[in-house]
Amino acid sequence: MKIITIGREFGSGGRELGKRLADALNIPCYDKEILHEVAKIHGVETEYIDQISQAEISIVYPTTIGGTLYSPIYYNKDVIDNLVTEQEVIRKLAEKGDCVFVGRSADVILKDMNPFNIFVYASEESKLNRCLKRTSSNETKKEILKEMKKIDKARANNRHLITDSKWADKSTYHLCINTTNIEIKDIIPSLVNYIESWFNSK
Amino acid sequence: MKIITIGREFGSGGRELGKRLADALNIPCYDKEILHEVAKIHGVETEYIDQISQAEISIVYPTTIGGTLYSPIYYNKDVIDNLVTEQEVIRKLAEKGDCVFVGRSADVILKDMNPFNIFVYASEESKLNRCLKRTSSNETKKEILKEMKKIDKARANNRHLITDSKWADKSTYHLCINTTNIEIKDIIPSLVNYIESWFNSK
Repeated sequence: MKIITIGREFGSGGRELGKRLADALNIPCYDKEILHEVAKIHGVETEYIDQISQAEISIVYPTTIGGTLYSPIYYNKDVIDNLVTEQEVIRKLAEKGDCVFVGRSADVILKDMNPFNIFVYASEESKLNRCLKRTSSNETKKEILKEMKKIDKARANNRHLITDSKWADKSTYHLCINTTNIEIKDIIPSLVNYIESWFNSK
Repeated sequence: MKIITIGREFGSGGRELGKRLADALNIPCYDKEILHEVAKIHGVETEYIDQISQAEISIVYPTTIGGTLYSPIYYNKDVIDNLVTEQEVIRKLAEKGDCVFVGRSADVILKDMNPFNIFVYASEESKLNRCLKRTSSNETKKEILKEMKKIDKARANNRHLITDSKWADKSTYHLCINTTNIEIKDIIPSLVNYIESWFNSK
Protein backbone atom coordinates (compact mmCIF):
# COMPACT_ATOMS: atom_id res chain seq x y z
CA MET A 1 0.00 0.00 0.00
CA LYS A 2 1.43 3.41 -0.96
CA ILE A 3 0.08 6.23 1.15
CA ILE A 4 1.53 9.71 0.82
CA THR A 5 0.83 12.45 3.34
CA ILE A 6 1.50 16.14 2.88
CA GLY A 7 1.99 18.63 5.67
CA ARG A 8 2.40 22.22 4.52
CA GLU A 9 2.78 25.81 5.51
CA PHE A 10 -0.16 27.96 4.45
CA GLY A 11 0.57 29.41 1.01
CA SER A 12 3.42 27.05 0.18
CA GLY A 13 1.49 25.24 -2.55
CA GLY A 14 1.17 21.99 -0.60
CA ARG A 15 -2.37 21.39 -1.79
CA GLU A 16 -1.38 21.92 -5.45
CA LEU A 17 1.56 19.56 -4.94
CA GLY A 18 -0.73 16.92 -3.44
CA LYS A 19 -3.28 17.14 -6.26
CA ARG A 20 -0.63 17.03 -8.99
CA LEU A 21 1.17 14.15 -7.32
CA ALA A 22 -2.06 12.16 -7.03
CA ASP A 23 -2.91 12.89 -10.67
CA ALA A 24 0.54 11.75 -11.80
CA LEU A 25 0.21 8.55 -9.77
CA ASN A 26 -3.42 8.12 -10.82
CA ILE A 27 -4.62 7.77 -7.23
CA PRO A 28 -7.11 9.87 -5.22
CA CYS A 29 -6.10 12.97 -3.28
CA TYR A 30 -8.03 13.65 -0.07
CA ASP A 31 -8.15 17.21 1.15
CA LYS A 32 -11.46 19.01 1.65
CA GLU A 33 -13.13 15.61 1.05
CA ILE A 34 -12.22 14.71 4.63
CA LEU A 35 -14.02 17.78 5.99
CA HIS A 36 -17.12 17.06 3.83
CA GLU A 37 -17.25 13.54 5.23
CA VAL A 38 -16.83 14.72 8.85
CA ALA A 39 -19.51 17.37 8.32
CA LYS A 40 -21.90 14.79 6.89
CA ILE A 41 -21.39 12.48 9.89
CA HIS A 42 -22.00 15.31 12.38
CA GLY A 43 -24.89 16.73 10.33
CA VAL A 44 -23.33 20.18 10.07
CA GLU A 45 -22.01 22.39 7.28
CA THR A 46 -18.47 21.79 5.99
CA GLU A 47 -17.72 25.46 6.71
CA TYR A 48 -18.36 24.88 10.41
CA ILE A 49 -15.88 21.99 10.52
CA ASP A 50 -13.41 24.11 8.60
CA GLN A 51 -13.81 26.96 11.08
CA ILE A 52 -13.35 24.64 14.02
CA SER A 53 -10.16 23.16 12.66
CA GLN A 54 -8.70 26.58 12.08
CA ALA A 55 -9.84 28.07 15.37
CA GLU A 56 -7.31 29.14 17.92
CA ILE A 57 -7.24 26.44 20.53
CA SER A 58 -6.13 27.37 24.00
CA ILE A 59 -4.20 24.46 25.34
CA VAL A 60 -3.22 24.85 28.95
CA TYR A 61 -0.31 22.52 29.53
CA PRO A 62 -0.49 20.58 32.78
CA THR A 63 2.24 21.59 35.20
CA THR A 64 3.04 19.79 38.39
CA ILE A 65 3.90 21.39 41.70
CA GLY A 66 5.26 18.95 44.24
CA GLY A 67 4.03 16.10 42.10
CA THR A 68 0.41 17.28 42.05
CA LEU A 69 -1.31 18.11 38.78
CA TYR A 70 -1.69 21.86 38.95
CA SER A 71 -3.54 23.06 35.86
CA PRO A 72 -6.12 21.03 34.01
CA ILE A 73 -6.16 20.87 30.20
CA TYR A 74 -9.00 22.85 28.70
CA TYR A 75 -10.37 22.01 25.29
CA ASN A 76 -13.26 22.69 23.04
CA LYS A 77 -15.53 19.62 22.87
CA ASP A 78 -16.45 20.23 19.24
CA VAL A 79 -12.77 20.38 18.34
CA ILE A 80 -12.11 17.01 19.94
CA ASP A 81 -15.26 15.41 18.44
CA ASN A 82 -14.17 16.66 15.07
CA LEU A 83 -10.65 15.27 15.51
CA VAL A 84 -11.95 11.85 16.50
CA THR A 85 -14.31 11.64 13.52
CA GLU A 86 -11.57 12.96 11.23
CA GLN A 87 -9.29 10.13 12.31
CA GLU A 88 -11.97 7.55 11.58
CA VAL A 89 -12.66 9.09 8.16
CA ILE A 90 -8.95 9.24 7.27
CA ARG A 91 -8.40 5.62 8.25
CA LYS A 92 -11.38 4.41 6.22
CA LEU A 93 -10.18 6.34 3.16
CA ALA A 94 -6.62 4.98 3.57
CA GLU A 95 -7.88 1.41 3.76
CA LYS A 96 -9.47 1.80 0.32
CA GLY A 97 -6.01 1.85 -1.33
CA ASP A 98 -3.09 4.02 -2.47
CA CYS A 99 -3.80 7.73 -2.01
CA VAL A 100 -2.51 11.18 -1.06
CA PHE A 101 -3.66 13.06 2.05
CA VAL A 102 -3.20 16.80 2.34
CA GLY A 103 -3.02 18.01 5.93
CA ARG A 104 -5.07 16.79 8.94
CA SER A 105 -1.94 15.15 10.48
CA ALA A 106 -2.60 12.05 8.38
CA ASP A 107 1.06 11.06 8.85
CA VAL A 108 0.42 10.61 12.57
CA ILE A 109 -2.99 8.97 12.20
CA LEU A 110 -1.71 6.44 9.63
CA LYS A 111 1.73 5.85 11.17
CA ASP A 112 1.24 2.07 11.34
CA MET A 113 0.60 2.01 7.57
CA ASN A 114 4.12 3.47 6.92
CA PRO A 115 3.15 6.40 4.73
CA PHE A 116 5.68 8.56 2.89
CA ASN A 117 5.49 11.92 4.63
CA ILE A 118 6.26 15.17 2.84
CA PHE A 119 6.42 18.67 4.30
CA VAL A 120 6.06 21.61 1.93
CA TYR A 121 7.35 25.05 2.89
CA ALA A 122 8.51 28.30 1.34
CA SER A 123 9.83 31.73 2.17
CA GLU A 124 7.33 34.21 3.57
CA GLU A 125 7.57 36.33 0.41
CA SER A 126 6.91 33.36 -1.84
CA LYS A 127 3.91 32.26 0.26
CA LEU A 128 2.52 35.77 0.23
CA ASN A 129 2.81 35.96 -3.57
CA ARG A 130 1.07 32.62 -3.95
CA CYS A 131 -1.78 33.81 -1.71
CA LEU A 132 -2.08 37.13 -3.52
CA LYS A 133 -2.39 35.30 -6.85
CA ARG A 134 -5.26 33.10 -5.69
CA THR A 135 -7.21 35.48 -3.49
CA SER A 136 -10.27 37.15 -4.93
CA SER A 137 -10.83 39.42 -1.95
CA ASN A 138 -9.25 42.77 -1.27
CA GLU A 139 -7.14 41.59 1.63
CA THR A 140 -3.99 43.57 2.24
CA LYS A 141 -0.58 41.93 2.50
CA LYS A 142 -0.65 42.53 6.22
CA GLU A 143 -4.02 40.81 6.58
CA ILE A 144 -2.86 37.82 4.54
CA LEU A 145 0.31 37.49 6.63
CA LYS A 146 -1.76 37.56 9.81
CA GLU A 147 -4.12 34.91 8.44
CA MET A 148 -1.15 32.81 7.32
CA LYS A 149 0.34 32.81 10.81
CA LYS A 150 -3.03 32.11 12.44
CA ILE A 151 -3.72 29.09 10.25
CA ASP A 152 -0.22 27.63 10.69
CA LYS A 153 -0.55 28.08 14.44
CA ALA A 154 -3.89 26.25 14.41
CA ARG A 155 -2.32 23.44 12.39
CA ALA A 156 0.51 23.12 14.91
CA ASN A 157 -1.96 23.14 17.80
CA ASN A 158 -4.26 20.59 16.19
CA ARG A 159 -1.30 18.30 15.66
CA HIS A 160 -0.27 18.76 19.25
CA LEU A 161 -3.63 17.36 20.38
CA ILE A 162 -2.74 13.95 18.99
CA THR A 163 1.06 13.66 19.06
CA ASP A 164 4.26 14.87 20.67
CA SER A 165 5.99 15.16 17.29
CA LYS A 166 6.08 18.79 16.25
CA TRP A 167 4.34 20.19 13.20
CA ALA A 168 6.88 21.36 10.59
CA ASP A 169 9.79 19.69 12.40
CA LYS A 170 11.76 18.00 9.63
CA SER A 171 12.61 14.93 11.73
CA THR A 172 8.95 13.91 11.44
CA TYR A 173 8.94 13.87 7.63
CA HIS A 174 10.75 11.84 4.96
CA LEU A 175 11.22 14.74 2.57
CA CYS A 176 10.88 18.50 3.09
CA ILE A 177 10.38 20.51 -0.07
CA ASN A 178 11.04 24.24 -0.37
CA THR A 179 8.76 25.62 -3.09
CA THR A 180 10.21 29.14 -3.08
CA ASN A 181 10.51 30.43 -6.66
CA ILE A 182 9.67 27.17 -8.36
CA GLU A 183 6.74 25.93 -10.42
CA ILE A 184 5.31 22.95 -8.58
CA LYS A 185 4.37 21.15 -11.81
CA ASP A 186 8.05 21.05 -12.81
CA ILE A 187 9.13 18.92 -9.86
CA ILE A 188 6.27 16.37 -10.00
CA PRO A 189 7.86 13.77 -12.35
CA SER A 190 11.07 13.55 -10.31
CA LEU A 191 9.10 13.56 -7.05
CA VAL A 192 7.03 10.62 -8.31
CA ASN A 193 10.29 8.75 -9.03
CA TYR A 194 11.73 9.68 -5.65
CA ILE A 195 8.66 8.36 -3.83
CA GLU A 196 8.66 5.14 -5.86
CA SER A 197 12.35 4.59 -5.08
CA TRP A 198 11.64 5.24 -1.41
CA PHE A 199 8.86 2.64 -1.29
CA ASN A 200 11.03 0.12 -3.19
CA SER A 201 13.97 0.84 -0.87
CA LYS A 202 12.04 -0.16 2.25
CA MET B 1 26.40 26.89 -13.52
CA LYS B 2 25.00 24.08 -11.38
CA ILE B 3 26.41 24.01 -7.88
CA ILE B 4 24.99 21.63 -5.30
CA THR B 5 25.76 21.94 -1.61
CA ILE B 6 25.12 19.34 1.05
CA GLY B 7 24.70 20.03 4.73
CA ARG B 8 24.30 16.94 6.88
CA GLU B 9 23.98 15.53 10.33
CA PHE B 10 26.91 13.35 11.33
CA GLY B 11 26.14 9.74 10.41
CA SER B 12 23.24 10.55 8.07
CA GLY B 13 25.12 9.48 4.94
CA GLY B 14 25.46 13.01 3.55
CA ARG B 15 28.97 12.38 2.28
CA GLU B 16 27.92 9.20 0.48
CA LEU B 17 24.96 11.05 -1.01
CA GLY B 18 27.26 13.84 -2.24
CA LYS B 19 29.75 11.45 -3.83
CA ARG B 20 27.05 9.37 -5.52
CA LEU B 21 25.26 12.48 -6.75
CA ALA B 22 28.47 13.89 -8.21
CA ASP B 23 29.25 10.56 -9.88
CA ALA B 24 25.79 10.38 -11.41
CA LEU B 25 26.12 13.95 -12.71
CA ASN B 26 29.72 13.35 -13.76
CA ILE B 27 30.98 16.39 -11.85
CA PRO B 28 33.53 16.68 -9.02
CA CYS B 29 32.57 16.35 -5.35
CA TYR B 30 34.57 18.44 -2.91
CA ASP B 31 34.72 17.24 0.67
CA LYS B 32 38.07 16.48 2.34
CA GLU B 33 39.70 18.08 -0.75
CA ILE B 34 38.86 21.48 0.75
CA LEU B 35 40.69 20.64 3.96
CA HIS B 36 43.74 19.36 2.02
CA GLU B 37 43.86 22.61 0.09
CA VAL B 38 43.51 24.75 3.23
CA ALA B 39 46.21 22.70 4.98
CA LYS B 40 48.56 23.12 1.99
CA ILE B 41 48.09 26.89 2.03
CA HIS B 42 48.77 27.14 5.78
CA GLY B 43 51.63 24.62 5.58
CA VAL B 44 50.10 22.33 8.18
CA GLU B 45 48.76 18.78 8.24
CA THR B 46 45.20 18.15 7.05
CA GLU B 47 44.49 16.49 10.40
CA TYR B 48 45.19 19.76 12.19
CA ILE B 49 42.69 21.64 10.03
CA ASP B 50 40.20 18.83 10.59
CA GLN B 51 40.69 19.05 14.35
CA ILE B 52 40.26 22.80 14.30
CA SER B 53 37.04 22.67 12.33
CA GLN B 54 35.59 20.12 14.72
CA ALA B 55 36.82 21.78 17.89
CA GLU B 56 34.34 23.14 20.33
CA ILE B 57 34.29 26.85 19.78
CA SER B 58 33.26 28.98 22.70
CA ILE B 59 31.30 31.84 21.32
CA VAL B 60 30.45 34.34 23.97
CA TYR B 61 27.55 36.33 22.69
CA PRO B 62 27.80 40.03 23.40
CA THR B 63 25.21 41.17 25.87
CA THR B 64 24.44 44.75 26.68
CA ILE B 65 23.75 46.19 30.10
CA GLY B 66 22.35 49.67 30.00
CA GLY B 67 23.41 49.95 26.38
CA THR B 68 27.05 49.16 27.04
CA LEU B 69 28.68 46.15 25.43
CA TYR B 70 29.23 43.83 28.35
CA SER B 71 31.04 40.73 27.11
CA PRO B 72 33.45 40.67 24.21
CA ILE B 73 33.35 37.84 21.64
CA TYR B 74 36.21 35.42 22.09
CA TYR B 75 37.46 33.29 19.26
CA ASN B 76 40.33 31.09 18.31
CA LYS B 77 42.55 32.84 15.73
CA ASP B 78 43.40 29.58 13.98
CA VAL B 79 39.69 28.83 13.60
CA ILE B 80 39.05 32.16 11.93
CA ASP B 81 42.15 31.94 9.69
CA ASN B 82 41.00 28.51 8.63
CA LEU B 83 37.48 29.75 7.88
CA VAL B 84 38.78 32.61 5.75
CA THR B 85 41.08 30.35 3.70
CA GLU B 86 38.31 27.78 3.40
CA GLN B 87 36.02 30.39 1.87
CA GLU B 88 38.65 31.34 -0.68
CA VAL B 89 39.30 27.71 -1.56
CA ILE B 90 35.58 26.94 -1.91
CA ARG B 91 35.01 29.93 -4.17
CA LYS B 92 37.95 29.02 -6.44
CA LEU B 93 36.70 25.45 -6.76
CA ALA B 94 33.15 26.63 -7.51
CA GLU B 95 34.38 28.95 -10.24
CA LYS B 96 35.91 25.99 -12.07
CA GLY B 97 32.41 24.67 -12.96
CA ASP B 98 29.50 22.46 -11.88
CA CYS B 99 30.26 20.56 -8.68
CA VAL B 100 29.02 19.22 -5.36
CA PHE B 101 30.24 20.51 -2.00
CA VAL B 102 29.82 18.47 1.17
CA GLY B 103 29.72 20.57 4.31
CA ARG B 104 31.80 23.68 5.13
CA SER B 105 28.68 25.92 4.85
CA ALA B 106 29.28 26.16 1.10
CA ASP B 107 25.61 27.17 0.66
CA VAL B 108 26.31 30.39 2.57
CA ILE B 109 29.69 31.07 0.98
CA LEU B 110 28.35 30.59 -2.57
CA LYS B 111 24.94 32.17 -2.02
CA ASP B 112 25.39 34.61 -4.94
CA MET B 113 25.96 31.66 -7.29
CA ASN B 114 22.46 30.29 -6.47
CA PRO B 115 23.41 26.76 -5.49
CA PHE B 116 20.88 24.00 -4.87
CA ASN B 117 21.12 23.33 -1.15
CA ILE B 118 20.34 19.93 0.35
CA PHE B 119 20.25 18.97 4.00
CA VAL B 120 20.58 15.29 4.88
CA TYR B 121 19.35 13.98 8.22
CA ALA B 122 18.18 10.76 9.87
CA SER B 123 16.92 9.32 13.12
CA GLU B 124 19.48 8.88 15.89
CA GLU B 125 19.19 5.10 15.65
CA SER B 126 19.78 5.12 11.91
CA LYS B 127 22.82 7.44 12.26
CA LEU B 128 24.23 5.25 15.00
CA ASN B 129 23.88 2.12 12.83
CA ARG B 130 25.58 3.86 9.92
CA CYS B 131 28.47 4.87 12.18
CA LEU B 132 28.77 1.39 13.70
CA LYS B 133 29.00 -0.12 10.21
CA ARG B 134 31.86 2.09 9.12
CA THR B 135 33.87 2.36 12.33
CA SER B 136 36.93 0.16 12.71
CA SER B 137 37.57 1.16 16.32
CA ASN B 138 36.03 -0.32 19.43
CA GLU B 139 33.95 2.74 20.28
CA THR B 140 30.83 2.03 22.27
CA LYS B 141 27.40 3.26 21.20
CA LYS B 142 27.56 5.84 23.97
CA GLU B 143 30.92 7.16 22.73
CA ILE B 144 29.69 7.37 19.14
CA LEU B 145 26.56 9.24 20.22
CA LYS B 146 28.71 11.70 22.18
CA GLU B 147 31.01 12.21 19.19
CA MET B 148 27.98 12.65 16.90
CA LYS B 149 26.57 15.41 19.09
CA LYS B 150 29.97 17.10 19.46
CA ILE B 151 30.58 17.21 15.69
CA ASP B 152 27.08 18.47 14.88
CA LYS B 153 27.48 21.16 17.54
CA ALA B 154 30.80 22.22 16.01
CA ARG B 155 29.16 22.37 12.56
CA ALA B 156 26.38 24.56 13.92
CA ASN B 157 28.90 26.83 15.66
CA ASN B 158 31.15 27.12 12.61
CA ARG B 159 28.16 28.11 10.51
CA HIS B 160 27.19 30.66 13.11
CA LEU B 161 30.56 32.39 12.63
CA ILE B 162 29.61 33.39 9.08
CA THR B 163 25.81 33.66 8.99
CA ASP B 164 22.64 34.21 10.99
CA SER B 165 20.88 31.38 9.17
CA LYS B 166 20.80 28.33 11.39
CA TRP B 167 22.51 25.05 10.61
CA ALA B 168 19.92 22.30 9.97
CA ASP B 169 17.02 24.77 9.82
CA LYS B 170 14.99 23.65 6.83
CA SER B 171 14.15 27.17 5.69
CA THR B 172 17.80 27.54 4.64
CA TYR B 173 17.73 24.56 2.27
CA HIS B 174 15.87 23.67 -0.93
CA LEU B 175 15.38 20.02 -0.07
CA CYS B 176 15.76 18.15 3.22
CA ILE B 177 16.22 14.40 2.87
CA ASN B 178 15.60 11.92 5.66
CA THR B 179 17.83 8.88 5.05
CA THR B 180 16.41 6.75 7.86
CA ASN B 181 16.06 3.12 6.70
CA ILE B 182 16.85 3.76 3.06
CA GLU B 183 19.72 2.87 0.77
CA ILE B 184 21.17 6.12 -0.49
CA LYS B 185 22.05 4.67 -3.89
CA ASP B 186 18.36 3.97 -4.53
CA ILE B 187 17.30 7.61 -4.39
CA ILE B 188 20.13 9.02 -6.54
CA PRO B 189 18.48 8.76 -10.00
CA SER B 190 15.31 10.56 -8.88
CA LEU B 191 17.33 13.10 -6.92
CA VAL B 192 19.35 13.89 -10.06
CA ASN B 193 16.07 14.49 -11.91
CA TYR B 194 14.69 16.60 -9.10
CA ILE B 195 17.78 18.83 -9.08
CA GLU B 196 17.73 19.18 -12.87
CA SER B 197 14.03 20.18 -12.77
CA TRP B 198 14.80 22.68 -10.04
CA PHE B 199 17.57 24.34 -12.05
CA ASN B 200 15.33 24.37 -15.18
CA SER B 201 12.44 25.81 -13.16
CA LYS B 202 14.48 28.86 -12.08
